[in-house]
Amino acid sequence: MTDATGPTTPTAEIPGFHLYDTTLRDGSQQEGLTLSVTDKLAVARHLDELGVTYIEGGWPGAVPRDTEFFQRARTELQLTHARLAAFGATRKAGAAVEEDPQVAALVEAGTPTITLVAKSDLRHVTGALRTTAEENLAMVTDTVSYLVGLGREVILDAEHFFDGFLHDPDYTTSVLVAAHEAGAAVLVLCDTNGGMLPHQVTEIIENLSARLETAGAGDARLGAHTHNDTGCAVANAISAVRAGITHVQGCVNGYGERTGNADLVTLMGDLQLKMGMDLVPAETLAETTRISHAIGEIVNMPVTTRAPYVGASAFAHKAGLHASAIRVDPDLYQHTDPREVGNDMRMIISDMAGRASIELKGRELGFDLAGEPELLSRLAATVKQREAEGYSYEAADASFELLLLDELGQVPSYSTVESWRATSQLGRDGTLETEATVKLRSDAEGEHERKVAIAEGNGPVNALDLALREALRERHPEVDEFELRDFKVRILDAHHGTDATVRVLVRTSGRGLEFQTVGVGPNVIEASWEAIYDAYTYGLYKSGV
Amino acid sequence: MTDATGPTTPTAEIPGFHLYDTTLRDGSQQEGLTLSVTDKLAVARHLDELGVTYIEGGWPGAVPRDTEFFQRARTELQLTHARLAAFGATRKAGAAVEEDPQVAALVEAGTPTITLVAKSDLRHVTGALRTTAEENLAMVTDTVSYLVGLGREVILDAEHFFDGFLHDPDYTTSVLVAAHEAGAAVLVLCDTNGGMLPHQVTEIIENLSARLETAGAGDARLGAHTHNDTGCAVANAISAVRAGITHVQGCVNGYGERTGNADLVTLMGDLQLKMGMDLVPAETLAETTRISHAIGEIVNMPVTTRAPYVGASAFAHKAGLHASAIRVDPDLYQHTDPREVGNDMRMIISDMAGRASIELKGRELGFDLAGEPELLSRLAATVKQREAEGYSYEAADASFELLLLDELGQVPSYSTVESWRATSQLGRDGTLETEATVKLRSDAEGEHERKVAIAEGNGPVNALDLALREALRERHPEVDEFELRDFKVRILDAHHGTDATVRVLVRTSGRGLEFQTVGVGPNVIEASWEAIYDAYTYGLYKSGV
Repeated sequence: MTDATGPTTPTAEIPGFHLYDTTLRDGSQQEGLTLSVTDKLAVARHLDELGVTYIEGGWPGAVPRDTEFFQRARTELQLTHARLAAFGATRKAGAAVEEDPQVAALVEAGTPTITLVAKSDLRHVTGALRTTAEENLAMVTDTVSYLVGLGREVILDAEHFFDGFLHDPDYTTSVLVAAHEAGAAVLVLCDTNGGMLPHQVTEIIENLSARLETAGAGDARLGAHTHNDTGCAVANAISAVRAGITHVQGCVNGYGERTGNADLVTLMGDLQLKMGMDLVPAETLAETTRISHAIGEIVNMPVTTRAPYVGASAFAHKAGLHASAIRVDPDLYQHTDPREVGNDMRMIISDMAGRASIELKGRELGFDLAGEPELLSRLAATVKQREAEGYSYEAADASFELLLLDELGQVPSYSTVESWRATSQLGRDGTLETEATVKLRSDAEGEHERKVAIAEGNGPVNALDLALREALRERHPEVDEFELRDFKVRILDAHHGTDATVRVLVRTSGRGLEFQTVGVGPNVIEASWEAIYDAYTYGLYKSGV
Repeated sequence: MTDATGPTTPTAEIPGFHLYDTTLRDGSQQEGLTLSVTDKLAVARHLDELGVTYIEGGWPGAVPRDTEFFQRARTELQLTHARLAAFGATRKAGAAVEEDPQVAALVEAGTPTITLVAKSDLRHVTGALRTTAEENLAMVTDTVSYLVGLGREVILDAEHFFDGFLHDPDYTTSVLVAAHEAGAAVLVLCDTNGGMLPHQVTEIIENLSARLETAGAGDARLGAHTHNDTGCAVANAISAVRAGITHVQGCVNGYGERTGNADLVTLMGDLQLKMGMDLVPAETLAETTRISHAIGEIVNMPVTTRAPYVGASAFAHKAGLHASAIRVDPDLYQHTDPREVGNDMRMIISDMAGRASIELKGRELGFDLAGEPELLSRLAATVKQREAEGYSYEAADASFELLLLDELGQVPSYSTVESWRATSQLGRDGTLETEATVKLRSDAEGEHERKVAIAEGNGPVNALDLALREALRERHPEVDEFELRDFKVRILDAHHGTDATVRVLVRTSGRGLEFQTVGVGPNVIEASWEAIYDAYTYGLYKSGV
């Protein structure tokens, strides 16, 4: 268990190979990717599940959201495997490290590990940082020593390492040696501009290793941080591993600035399944597809269908030539067993959600459906049809369970919806008003009570939510114990512009539960209504009301 | 000029390095990618412009659309550089090649080049093809000899070459030797299942080359066909090139079955700009971005923003950290000059943006703000404040430009919004109705005309869009030339549930423009209204209305 409140004794090195994830920092540099603090905490939990060694959380002090992330992480983030790292830079040129507010913010973040970026390309030292070669070395030495002296583990990211090494290998090597001597636990070789090819990575690391040996730093642990600007981020990381590095940095789903960072998910597959490295337990690797997609949902950048190992098409075969042979021996047509990464072989014309996966899902939810082939077939058909309409049960277990309960005739009905209306309007005086009306009929036996409720809200969905609560409250006061915690909208079929289909996912917590529901429709209000109504139904039912 | 009607004398080998594109055949195996014959012809023209050596058009005889493609290509496709290839298989087991209808269809396609796929993994010969090792060799020899005898150039695709070689290198080599002896111009080593890593590719090709030398086939020209299942399609092709192959197969934009084929666009950049190979004239390479996107439009699979070299984000910078240094020397922060591939460096405006990045962004949009430090400061402050409220300008250049125009006092005002209203309601009969009302006042001098418009829509945003168009149409009929093409909703600050802030991004095209606008508010309707209203304002202004 990692203690995010900060160590009192020096942080011990993590043995073995390091998978270092920087989705929350470098990944957030991707165009269009912006994470709230809550998003970051949710992603961090999934990264921990994925089995990464380090989670880089952001740059405290420089980015206000990141400062808040590290504050909240102390109480809200319990990591079981991963160690949390705060990212920052070496001290300012010409200033004392103890007085540098950026360095102070790193210390205050309270993480066991601090990752420091340092210039290692002399042209950047003089051209961008506008300081001298010597001062840059002193900045590295001072900052690393200071933080190590405070008991922190320090990882040094040597920015522009490869370009710098090609330009002036002596200087670039001296930066690494300085960091090593000052106590850095890992020296990370960064291809910051992303222009390297795999054979160059090999050659440069071999050359560097010889130089480090000569400089008495042959025992330094090396890492690699690669980008995909030549389409070789993963291959460059593999080259580095084969050249002896034992720490790779990347981002889940290859998020990152420009063309992205090395895809950590692909790398895990390659290193473990192709190169035989023992990085995570097999049962953890089998969660990769699920976790990769869950993170894609949170950051609102779905996993591309073509993603290696975890993409929806990664093990999909367009019928024809292969179909009959695949039936004989699927291994002839796949490079690895998709179950190893939790994915499935799929024939594109056949249905996706087979009976087997529904049976497994049911078991996961506590229903034994093994002896009910007809029910499984009906459910598989329903799921297939609703997925075709735009529903996605992957991230909405509660809606799937309601579907299953419905098939079993156990679906609870707390009320019947008679009608609802939501209106937003901008008045002549510039004020924005939103109100909703909900009319329900009670379903209790022998009762024919109607409930009409009206509410104002920040927006139409909020107003509908409040009006629905109001209408349910008298008979089911427990509704007030639930809170809608997250609300995600995805436009499907984007080519139709504002005339598109909308999918809404709602995450609700309360009465000891936390669950997601889904709604779909041509109208964001209707889709939201469906997801919210399901959320109250599910919440009341599962908490025994 | 290639003659697509078929040669009368043996087709001469094309000297130099071969870029072989299979977008029209293997690329079409991608899930969701379906091309009409007209699409295929249009893609082929772009591929020719791109400077590829070969264009594989499809499988005549097996796919009716492909048969038609080759028929129409004879008259409708004038290629200036590329040679057209038809793809097919070796003859059936136990049949005469002259009587094989599949082979006859290949001949009838009338292309100078025929690419034959042959089994080269013994397990596939016996397990999938269900014939003998010897018969498979005879099928290769017979089919290659027959087609070469008809004056065609034959390229042999050795299917499952790498897996086969690892399983039984003797047999796999014997297939290649048989094809070479029968007159095949190129022996293509296919990683059909895509599971290889770069170092394996190198080792296997080196091993194969020694075996070919021994077998007296050391002069054979070798090619490589790689897939991206390990995220290494491009790197594997580069490994193969470094191991001596002189023909690479791939697809534009990395289209292809499962995870896709090697991205030929990325490969062209890597081979020419990083490895110094002289594949196409510099002015052709400078068309790469345009052609890659044009093909993406035709096949209706837009180039991903993260695509190396040609993606919209490939040379985009978000971090404020870099901006001031980029102003000094852009080459410090890019791996190659984006103009070499026809792309551009782009500053992404975010809350990390300082005055330097705003100045650069202004320059990109055609405004010289270098001499206006106060304006830059005001704009930087506005951007920071609005980003804190939830706006995001990184994907909304048009909204940023409106902000800038506003600071410059140049913002156009086409009308004043008096009020609007959007209502969604579910009636007792279960029907869903949505309508919107928009009231505008004209801003034209001396006019005080009011416009009141009402519209029904699929959802409140669609209804508002339609009502706004209706209200603007009479004075500005150009509004109908714009189409809202994409609509993205992001909930910020998710822990507030339905009481959260909403950000809407709208992509609009029309009148030769394509741009994005952003709106923010507690209400999805209000945020959408803002983004749509900005879209019409921007579109009308930029197109000179």
